[in-house]
Amino acid sequence: MTPPRLPLARYVDGVLGGDTAILARAITLVESERAADADAAAALLDAVLPHAGRSRRVGITGVPGVGKSTFIDALGIHLVRDRGERVAVLSVDPSSPISRGSILGDKTRMERLALEDGAYIRPSPARGFLGGVARHTRETILLCEAAGFGTILVETVGVGQSETAVRSMTDFFLLLLLPGAGDQLQGIKRGIIEMVDAIAITKADGDMLALAERARVEYQAALHLFPAAANGWNPPVVTCSAVTPAGVGDIWDLVIEHHARMVANRQLASRRRAQSIEWMRELVSTEVDAAFRAHPRVADALPALESAVAEGRTTAFAAARELLTLFRG
Amino acid sequence: MTPPRLPLARYVDGVLGGDTAILARAITLVESERAADADAAAALLDAVLPHAGRSRRVGITGVPGVGKSTFIDALGIHLVRDRGERVAVLSVDPSSPISRGSILGDKTRMERLALEDGAYIRPSPARGFLGGVARHTRETILLCEAAGFGTILVETVGVGQSETAVRSMTDFFLLLLLPGAGDQLQGIKRGIIEMVDAIAITKADGDMLALAERARVEYQAALHLFPAAANGWNPPVVTCSAVTPAGVGDIWDLVIEHHARMVANRQLASRRRAQSIEWMRELVSTEVDAAFRAHPRVADALPALESAVAEGRTTAFAAARELLTLFRG
Repeated sequence: MTPPRLPLARYVDGVLGGDTAILARAITLVESERAADADAAAALLDAVLPHAGRSRRVGITGVPGVGKSTFIDALGIHLVRDRGERVAVLSVDPSSPISRGSILGDKTRMERLALEDGAYIRPSPARGFLGGVARHTRETILLCEAAGFGTILVETVGVGQSETAVRSMTDFFLLLLLPGAGDQLQGIKRGIIEMVDAIAITKADGDMLALAERARVEYQAALHLFPAAANGWNPPVVTCSAVTPAGVGDIWDLVIEHHARMVANRQLASRRRAQSIEWMRELVSTEVDAAFRAHPRVADALPALESAVAEGRTTAFAAARELLTLFRG
Repeated sequence: MTPPRLPLARYVDGVLGGDTAILARAITLVESERAADADAAAALLDAVLPHAGRSRRVGITGVPGVGKSTFIDALGIHLVRDRGERVAVLSVDPSSPISRGSILGDKTRMERLALEDGAYIRPSPARGFLGGVARHTRETILLCEAAGFGTILVETVGVGQSETAVRSMTDFFLLLLLPGAGDQLQGIKRGIIEMVDAIAITKADGDMLALAERARVEYQAALHLFPAAANGWNPPVVTCSAVTPAGVGDIWDLVIEHHARMVANRQLASRRRAQSIEWMRELVSTEVDAAFRAHPRVADALPALESAVAEGRTTAFAAARELLTLFRG
């Protein structure tokens, strides 16, 4: 299935030269779970790292049915054709099977954008890691940036699990909502609405236009009652239509304004720095936790102790103490 | 300073007999960081555990100045005098020094309630653990329940750090807000408003009454636009005054209604079960993480690797991989 690994220089030259066929293979290398690929992947990332970082990273979320794919299709077309941008679209799909076959499905979802030379669409298999979030999406962002993509759109697919992770790897986090406020809220994780940088009410065209405008006004009023971001950015609420495509360009103007402000007050660098450190810690603690759980004495005792805690036969504190004693031997 | 430790049976009998002097010493034992006390604390908790769990656990948060202490004073007085409840008030204060001397400060803050026989007020020193949250507040809840307190009020003191933890140890999470919506929002952690079970607008008396009512209407409208809890509970927004004390009893009626619903649909048991398991995991992963960071080779390499990640000289992935290799030796 997987083509043979190339020499490191081929990956590096191909990525830096903007060769999307090589970029695709580089991403596959970085996503590889084979131990034999790990050193090459690390070396590749180290080599491209000085050329990464110069993009706008935008996370886009919303429940199924809100029209994420058609929105991204319309936004991508606008960016490529009207603004001359090179756009990479990465999807984080916690529900997809571990298969590279879903690429075709993704390209079908964004059928116009998939035909554009300036666009690159790449789903990441989830591998059940960190709440269903693609383990290597952060590294894929770096590879795409090194390949000259100035716009990275990271899309959450599926519901409720991947929003936090996508927010933690992007500079701007956009929530898409349907007109008819409140209908789709069950699918959105609580706490997320307060963390977005903008809300766009989709499908603001034809019969839905008035409803969308009403939802916009309501959400804008609601957001004013909630804590603002530390940077003083008040998340705007706008309407858009992937069809007409009214509002799509305005949303990108917001992204640019937000980005310029984050650069000017140096918050972009500090947000990305904090994201990287946090991600390093998460990787470490996930692995250390896995090692803990795999420890033979811990693995033996854990199910019974979890039951005892759940049934109120012992305290969390006592159970944790016992597990740690077993672990330390 | 600390009185000598009692025999285990004295603690158990005293707590189960509702002796608040012994309860206070039992809490001190459980809070002790002395290794020599750990076994006794664990045995005490195991002994009282079958008698714990039969209370309403209510978390109360809000920024400084919102009137948390006077509200809790008024609520406690209402519960003790009008409803015949026994009320324990536990404060979680991330800013307090490690000192039992703050008890006096706390009792002064709730000066009427402190004089009531049916009330017990106990601050927990924070000890800089888990984001400033008192490490042993969960165990203190169990001790108070075993001592016959049917109402446990857990108050967050200070700003922004302890809300999530207090929510994760209570059945009902109440946010106090000032009239003049929006003024105090900087102090509230983003994401918290979407996680509350009710909001009470304080100081709804005199000149502030109209303002408080307006804030109530605005927040109620706003909350309807946000994701509901999985249990279908729509967080009500009410007004109250600690002075008159209008609305204080109504808030407790909400707590009772919520509690009855959670019992009826078995969500109370499952919420507490999930909280205990989650707490066990947090305790374990905090300790394991500490062991990781204390590992000599990791401790040597960590500062330089964190700098390299922060400055973009290496990826989070490569740094995590190197740290894990060092740890595994």
